[in-house]
Amino acid sequence: MALETKSRSLLSSNGVLTQDGRTDRSRNSTLVGWLLNRLYESIGQPPIRIRLWDGTEIGAPEDAAAPTVTIRNRKALLQTMLYPELFFGELYSEGSIEVDGELLELLELAYRALHDAPAPGVLRKQAMRWLSRPRKNSLAGSRRNIHQHYDIGNDFYRLWLDEEMVYTCAYFPSPEAALEEAQRAKMDHVCRKLRLQPGETVVEAGCGWGSLALHMARHYGVSVKAYNISREQIRFARERAKALGLDDRVQFIEDDYRTIAGKFDAFVSIGMLEHVGADHYRDLGAVIHRCLRENGRGLIHSIGRNRPAPMNAWIERHIFPGAYPPALREMMHILEPWEFSVLDVENLRLHYAKTLEHWLDRYEHHAPQIREMFDARFVRAWRLYLAGSIAAFTTGALQLFQIVFARPRDNGIPWTRAHLYRDQAFQAPS
Amino acid sequence: MALETKSRSLLSSNGVLTQDGRTDRSRNSTLVGWLLNRLYESIGQPPIRIRLWDGTEIGAPEDAAAPTVTIRNRKALLQTMLYPELFFGELYSEGSIEVDGELLELLELAYRALHDAPAPGVLRKQAMRWLSRPRKNSLAGSRRNIHQHYDIGNDFYRLWLDEEMVYTCAYFPSPEAALEEAQRAKMDHVCRKLRLQPGETVVEAGCGWGSLALHMARHYGVSVKAYNISREQIRFARERAKALGLDDRVQFIEDDYRTIAGKFDAFVSIGMLEHVGADHYRDLGAVIHRCLRENGRGLIHSIGRNRPAPMNAWIERHIFPGAYPPALREMMHILEPWEFSVLDVENLRLHYAKTLEHWLDRYEHHAPQIREMFDARFVRAWRLYLAGSIAAFTTGALQLFQIVFARPRDNGIPWTRAHLYRDQAFQAPS
Repeated sequence: MALETKSRSLLSSNGVLTQDGRTDRSRNSTLVGWLLNRLYESIGQPPIRIRLWDGTEIGAPEDAAAPTVTIRNRKALLQTMLYPELFFGELYSEGSIEVDGELLELLELAYRALHDAPAPGVLRKQAMRWLSRPRKNSLAGSRRNIHQHYDIGNDFYRLWLDEEMVYTCAYFPSPEAALEEAQRAKMDHVCRKLRLQPGETVVEAGCGWGSLALHMARHYGVSVKAYNISREQIRFARERAKALGLDDRVQFIEDDYRTIAGKFDAFVSIGMLEHVGADHYRDLGAVIHRCLRENGRGLIHSIGRNRPAPMNAWIERHIFPGAYPPALREMMHILEPWEFSVLDVENLRLHYAKTLEHWLDRYEHHAPQIREMFDARFVRAWRLYLAGSIAAFTTGALQLFQIVFARPRDNGIPWTRAHLYRDQAFQAPS
Repeated sequence: MALETKSRSLLSSNGVLTQDGRTDRSRNSTLVGWLLNRLYESIGQPPIRIRLWDGTEIGAPEDAAAPTVTIRNRKALLQTMLYPELFFGELYSEGSIEVDGELLELLELAYRALHDAPAPGVLRKQAMRWLSRPRKNSLAGSRRNIHQHYDIGNDFYRLWLDEEMVYTCAYFPSPEAALEEAQRAKMDHVCRKLRLQPGETVVEAGCGWGSLALHMARHYGVSVKAYNISREQIRFARERAKALGLDDRVQFIEDDYRTIAGKFDAFVSIGMLEHVGADHYRDLGAVIHRCLRENGRGLIHSIGRNRPAPMNAWIERHIFPGAYPPALREMMHILEPWEFSVLDVENLRLHYAKTLEHWLDRYEHHAPQIREMFDARFVRAWRLYLAGSIAAFTTGALQLFQIVFARPRDNGIPWTRAHLYRDQAFQAPS
């Protein structure tokens, strides 16, 4: 590999680097030290320590309780310099980068520093473009992309999700609430926003393991058609519907949201938009327009951003192929062509950080089991994904938007939002 | 005028028009009947009756209790055909068009029909472009535009606004609430969304007659700098601050929002964005970014739309020069460049319809007085503006968005929105 050859020749010289006060602990060849210095500057000089295979160090002083990143070889150093957002994850997963101290703290510090870091030069930009080729979300592409994440084993997810297998941001009535309570509260919050009435029909686009569809039918008396292209999730959801005696009112359909047919009183989509891709927002809007009755209510719940930015390349490549969290402005391309009226937007960013903390706790608790199910590399990769997601939400790199909308001429919309917060808050009505 | 000459020659022939069942009551020259038919089709065939100066009629049958529009002369007919959104208002104001029956009902029917009407042809589009030349919102332009609406006399506005002279959408805890109560509830709703604490500082961009600035200082213990370029409004606001003994804590500044200086805990702007113009959203965002502290909260309250559309030409020309109600997507151009995080969007469309109904009631009550202050043309124009605004809100042509935002890394944001709806709702804390 050309990169590798070059790195060897670049690192062949040996010398001692003199640096400023912050970095004079570098004790290695001028070139390696210089490269480490460049790396540290390019990531915005976070208050962490970076150590090389030969002991060269930079960053926070050794006595500070700062997380330390150890880069184990030359190739790893060069790759990290080239595209830290992609290669840090790959190298951490394979063990060429190790972290001592709190991984989450490291990631939060890195997120903050990277945000304020100098823009990459022309060469790095070109390399980043070349290395980032997000997967497409055609009908077949989406099926592959979803399969890669959601079909890796229901037993695996059962280890660290709540008992109802809700794999989206919860709603914590207070920060101390248990995860189970918060997931139920989220489902009730969504049902209240949708103003569901017994006997109504609901279509759900991207239903995960079916928790919300079953909750709506069970506690709000509606009939639900729930779509999903993950075979494993649909299988699980159908079994649960049968076990709960709800299979006459909840139909789980293994198909793409683009095939939704029929007319419904409510449209809901929790955590699917991230997989739709901005190219297909008009398609999604057309589906909603086609299937929503004149007095229908819609709710889209999605990870988002304060402004458009490319998906993290490592996450897109190894965790969520084809995923893209949009800015609120981009989400409007779903609704505008059909003049849907935005009634309510709520940002639950801190709730997603809290949800992920619960998941990561349970995940770590079961790490030995997960290593047996997969391997050490998998355990590290998913740890990084969960911790990195917490850091993204706590540092404001990611948002969580719940958007409620209605037809433009529907004057039956609620007068205020007080009904979401009435006394019985977070208790299902039956 | 070329148009007038042409209309005469076009209307010189005389004949009897045979039309379909709906329109066979036309009893005049083929050409006039044909023109009326075209007009009726071009506005989407609303269930209203249109009558010409010579008795020719089209639309709803005579025995239906439908509002009737009488077009008094040929020029008025041709102008209405060319650009109804502009000329209907002008001709109604000058008396060349008269309305029998409920003006509001007529406008709602027209709004709905126009929405679904066939797109105008090339010629009409060109004419509309030529006749619509929205005024600019440069520093000097804004001053002229604002002067034209807000400086026409505090005594006039006092006749039909609430006692605190709040000239923006109220918040009705229930639809039956009185206007005074609803305006106070709106101010408290805004203050709660801003999470004001005693001793904090607030900057208000576009403060009207000062009601919110005074309310915040009086009931929430904050200091306020409030900007406005309407001389009459600032004069009134300063007098009221003195009378209330609040002039040490509320400073009314007769200047443009672009000159705001200093650092504040909260930024608020109620009903000014409509006058900013989409070209200047980046300027407004820069002002907010410059003046908001790290843990600062922002709130923008503005008329908006479900999707971008040009301002109604008559309103822009005769009522609100330079005004433009943006789509939510367009409003994001204020916040995105600085990565402000949208925490909450609430749509109060029906509350603005209700507010305007109260205003129109009071306005009609004082119509004789207003005729003495101005003239009959003014009375009709403002009646049309108020009734037309109700129709725009009830038919979904206009929205009212309240957007709350914060800095991207502020983790002190509220955990839920329940605090907006706690028991003491809509009673000021002191």
